[in-house]
Amino acid sequence: MTPLAVSLGDPAGIGPEIVAKAWACRESSGLPPFFAIGDARALALAWAGPVQRISSPLDATGVFPDALPLLQVEDAGDIKPGVPDLAGARCSLDALEMAAGLARSGTAGALVTGPVSKAQLYAIGFTHAGQTEFVAERCGVSADNVAMMLAGPSLRTVPITTHVPLAEVAGMLTTDLIMAKAHATARGLQRDFGIAAPRLAIAGFNPHAGEQGALGREEIDIIIPAVEALRADGMDIVGPLAADTMFHPRARARYDAALCIYHDQALIPLKTLHFDEGVNLTLGLPIVRTSPDHGTAFGIAGTDRADPGAMIAAIALAGQCARHRSRG
Amino acid sequence: MTPLAVSLGDPAGIGPEIVAKAWACRESSGLPPFFAIGDARALALAWAGPVQRISSPLDATGVFPDALPLLQVEDAGDIKPGVPDLAGARCSLDALEMAAGLARSGTAGALVTGPVSKAQLYAIGFTHAGQTEFVAERCGVSADNVAMMLAGPSLRTVPITTHVPLAEVAGMLTTDLIMAKAHATARGLQRDFGIAAPRLAIAGFNPHAGEQGALGREEIDIIIPAVEALRADGMDIVGPLAADTMFHPRARARYDAALCIYHDQALIPLKTLHFDEGVNLTLGLPIVRTSPDHGTAFGIAGTDRADPGAMIAAIALAGQCARHRSRG
Repeated sequence: MTPLAVSLGDPAGIGPEIVAKAWACRESSGLPPFFAIGDARALALAWAGPVQRISSPLDATGVFPDALPLLQVEDAGDIKPGVPDLAGARCSLDALEMAAGLARSGTAGALVTGPVSKAQLYAIGFTHAGQTEFVAERCGVSADNVAMMLAGPSLRTVPITTHVPLAEVAGMLTTDLIMAKAHATARGLQRDFGIAAPRLAIAGFNPHAGEQGALGREEIDIIIPAVEALRADGMDIVGPLAADTMFHPRARARYDAALCIYHDQALIPLKTLHFDEGVNLTLGLPIVRTSPDHGTAFGIAGTDRADPGAMIAAIALAGQCARHRSRG
Repeated sequence: MTPLAVSLGDPAGIGPEIVAKAWACRESSGLPPFFAIGDARALALAWAGPVQRISSPLDATGVFPDALPLLQVEDAGDIKPGVPDLAGARCSLDALEMAAGLARSGTAGALVTGPVSKAQLYAIGFTHAGQTEFVAERCGVSADNVAMMLAGPSLRTVPITTHVPLAEVAGMLTTDLIMAKAHATARGLQRDFGIAAPRLAIAGFNPHAGEQGALGREEIDIIIPAVEALRADGMDIVGPLAADTMFHPRARARYDAALCIYHDQALIPLKTLHFDEGVNLTLGLPIVRTSPDHGTAFGIAGTDRADPGAMIAAIALAGQCARHRSRG
């Protein structure tokens, strides 16, 4: 298959280490061929294994069995693990841009992004909320039609609102927003997971999903109208369900993805169950894009202690999704 | 040990069935001696095993090995499993009142309450929010100084606010409320769990615990001042922590109980991990009180399909807590 593009993320974070460790586990984890994009020196600081620079993604598959193929971007300056700086942020942005472009053109089979420092990116003039929004813009898709899915081995969740104060969520929630995220989720399950008839569940906002209005009206005023409209569109969706009773094993077996109203409602169950293997998948893009669901972990960078589990899961899932798309 | 009092709850719900099934598992589950309080006919409708009426709790321990000891309360009228009525609600309230009184007087070693129908109780003039508030009043303790703990084998959580609309939580949250719940929790861990120096963790309210105010100010304005005041009181408490990363196994190992800001923040991780064995424990009372963390399940009452796991866990935990108190 077409090799995947994996950006190393911030060179001072754990990104280079976990990408290298993922390559080292390529056989035991059954990973598809991939190549790294970033600064070779960041890899050398994190890892003593074989790295081979390539000049084109076309060379990646041939190199992959024997060395980690690397597409070099501009020099990241003086790299000190655990100490991010502006040169490193520029390097991480160059890598992201190149990786996104290669995925968009089809030269790479999917995009996997290593962790970046938002604070450092903002300091060099990056104006997007995060990598997801940047990639969406490069793909010509508006942010409302893109959905963030958190995927683990036994649970997939999609937060309808993400990084906003919890007290503002009720005011942002609209029937249109729920419908846009539900459609992006259903299409993503079809295209990227090969699920012909996706089953969705949506959580309530209030305790016990509001108890018929006794504990809040967001279900009655906003969520139920969205569910009814989605059903009229032919979607298989249940809810709003009491959020506390929808994530145990028997409940999870009844849906393919859970739509959640706010960040922690989606992230608490996912990370409680799958902390070391959670993958962030962007639905609604013309390309497959995943990332490990954790940050740069500057505090342990350079100490060889980073767990590559989530990066391995992100690469594996990107490969699976790319295969589903090529069949679809 | 002094036998525990177990109220059967609503006679038309699954309470009688799960209490009887718990007695049937008394040896394999290592349960302490207990006696049921309710209407014998509710038990007979749910279960064909041996029941022996007792006239005093003092007889319970002698009867317990051979039959489920039962203290009969007033007749529950015509009992139809799955169809609650006012006579049944009165019966459930009588059983609750008797059980609470026996625990308060020390004649019972602890109080375990079966599930009741709040709607039916309200219809007969019950003015408390639930059984917890009723028991607190009978014990002469104000509701603010009582805390609800949800306990499973690998996690204990305490919601600081409970059954209120999520949009109202921010307005109810005060430093005093957090401190009262933290103190009730720490005292409960000492008295009921024998943990001499309890370690608490408190969740943030906003995503990523607010990211230094970028995603909401409740942490800075309310939660952090409470944590600082509690530390000045000598309490071992960490937080506010990002709620999504505090419930995976390594994180759970660092605290004895997690204080959560709202209902679903406490209940989602607990029920995701321990759906069939969650126990609701009331901290801050002069007596030990537990209940299974589920409702009457009228939909399956009378069909012999109720899982007694949570009732078994509630009785076992009540026995353990009573033993800790008698040693303390």
